[in-house]
Amino acid sequence: MTQNTVKLASGHEMPLVGFGLWKVPKETAADTVYNAIKAGYRLFDGAYDYQNEKEAGEGIRRAIKDGLVKREDIFVTTKLWNNYHGKEHAVPMAKSQNDAWGLGYIDLFLIHFPCPLEYISPEKRRYPGWWMDDAGTVKPAKVSIRETWEQLESLVDSGIAKSIGVSNFQAQSLYDLFTYAKHPVSSLQIEHHPYLVQPNLIKMAQTHDIVITAYSSFGPQSFLELPEAFRQRAADVALLFDSDTIKSIAGKHKVTPAQVLLRWATQRNIAVIPKSNNPSRLAQNLDVLSFDLTKEELESISALDKGLRFNDPGHYLPNHPLHLFA
Amino acid sequence: MTQNTVKLASGHEMPLVGFGLWKVPKETAADTVYNAIKAGYRLFDGAYDYQNEKEAGEGIRRAIKDGLVKREDIFVTTKLWNNYHGKEHAVPMAKSQNDAWGLGYIDLFLIHFPCPLEYISPEKRRYPGWWMDDAGTVKPAKVSIRETWEQLESLVDSGIAKSIGVSNFQAQSLYDLFTYAKHPVSSLQIEHHPYLVQPNLIKMAQTHDIVITAYSSFGPQSFLELPEAFRQRAADVALLFDSDTIKSIAGKHKVTPAQVLLRWATQRNIAVIPKSNNPSRLAQNLDVLSFDLTKEELESISALDKGLRFNDPGHYLPNHPLHLFA
Repeated sequence: MTQNTVKLASGHEMPLVGFGLWKVPKETAADTVYNAIKAGYRLFDGAYDYQNEKEAGEGIRRAIKDGLVKREDIFVTTKLWNNYHGKEHAVPMAKSQNDAWGLGYIDLFLIHFPCPLEYISPEKRRYPGWWMDDAGTVKPAKVSIRETWEQLESLVDSGIAKSIGVSNFQAQSLYDLFTYAKHPVSSLQIEHHPYLVQPNLIKMAQTHDIVITAYSSFGPQSFLELPEAFRQRAADVALLFDSDTIKSIAGKHKVTPAQVLLRWATQRNIAVIPKSNNPSRLAQNLDVLSFDLTKEELESISALDKGLRFNDPGHYLPNHPLHLFA
Repeated sequence: MTQNTVKLASGHEMPLVGFGLWKVPKETAADTVYNAIKAGYRLFDGAYDYQNEKEAGEGIRRAIKDGLVKREDIFVTTKLWNNYHGKEHAVPMAKSQNDAWGLGYIDLFLIHFPCPLEYISPEKRRYPGWWMDDAGTVKPAKVSIRETWEQLESLVDSGIAKSIGVSNFQAQSLYDLFTYAKHPVSSLQIEHHPYLVQPNLIKMAQTHDIVITAYSSFGPQSFLELPEAFRQRAADVALLFDSDTIKSIAGKHKVTPAQVLLRWATQRNIAVIPKSNNPSRLAQNLDVLSFDLTKEELESISALDKGLRFNDPGHYLPNHPLHLFA
């Protein structure tokens, strides 16, 4: 299968469609990834936070061993978690993440949130709850974004990461980053679906040669299986799969609502990283480059915008709100 | 008249109600300020951008000379403009602003926007249009917020400014600033009215001991006299003075809609800086601490929120959008 790619500011190519590893259970991650490669996936979007890097890496290594792909066919994204932003922690953590994947290098390494928290030893506290101290307190750390970004830049210099970028950053954070970045910001990963369109942020990033990667492309759907604090906002709105706008466009193109949502992004050069454990949906989600929506269809989907964000630490940390998007 | 004040993180007191100098013509600024002092105003909110610092200072000095007030009764806020963020420009510009006021020191010095632009000599290009080059191009400068903040801190160390702060910053910018600030952020000045409530940003700032100063408290009203690009968004919505919610509350308390809008802010410990050239409105705007709105009234005003921002460079620089709030 031809894999459409987009060129990053670093010069490397990134597939426009990938497989997101958030909420993929550790126990099944290796098989899930192996089967996704079989289905044609080449990009895997992971993170320390997802707690399945080692297993995802195993799945990729097995596929390489079985001759399905070569390392250079695969694109691995991973992310630095909030408790490891400090210059004494970021590189050792990145190296240990790189070792967990076991693929020699990471293709794209992101700062997960602009949200430095005090260091907590990974040995001391484990998921979930491992980013607060024993008393359940979330403590911000005095680590500037610049300090962390410079550690990511050193990962490029040492060959651990091919490209670097950020996630959950707003425009003001990017403008400041531009003033001191020595390596380009290759990708900005953000929550992006028809209920949270953020056209100005996307325009700003694309103007600066940053490829947007959309997470939670299906909107509320992605949050319903999560704990209450996450789920609450999602439960209050109609699913995008049930939207008349989306269903009618899907009908016209003889595709699924999920495919419409993914194509709405990829057609605007936005990378997507859906997740599915269902083999037929796996294949469908990857097949979102072979049809084109009309300009009017793209606009009618964007018009569903509610400015509704589901993934905000301010929501799911009710006792320790971090209003990152205020 | 008793002047209610709020304590800043720097330890200094700031009046909760002040007079905003944006759009006060240079020609009448000295008299306007003098009369405002007579009416009881003690805080004057200026900026290099408003092009009337010298004249406002003249008005204050005349009032001091006439024995109406002493210097220490007066609180002057001013702001560093975007083209002077660099370490070679910020302090000389601040000194020249301090000289223009002619009052010995500035009470509160703010970064006007998190938006460094290339240096343009004040002699070379004049208002309006003085923040772009001769071709009308707005050019971002590679000056980090940290570099600029450190210049502001040096103003405190050298006695030019008593307190320092920022304007138009979002939460992510503040979190990063907290990681390196040696002097506290005393105030955050933001657009704040019932159409743009920003409760999470306000909560976040107040949690961190930052006093919010609200600008454009009357919402669209403040923008109608401006050029087209500014005015457009304001012309599309009902004036807050005409809102049934606001008028009904005003009627109950026998005050004006303007007083309701200002009290809605001050009652939540948010400073306001209305402007008026009309003597009776001048006095009314200052009299916004002598009545209390009920909790339900405060909430019904906040419920008018539309997330509608009028002052965004992305709107009034259509050919050079800076999406600062995306």
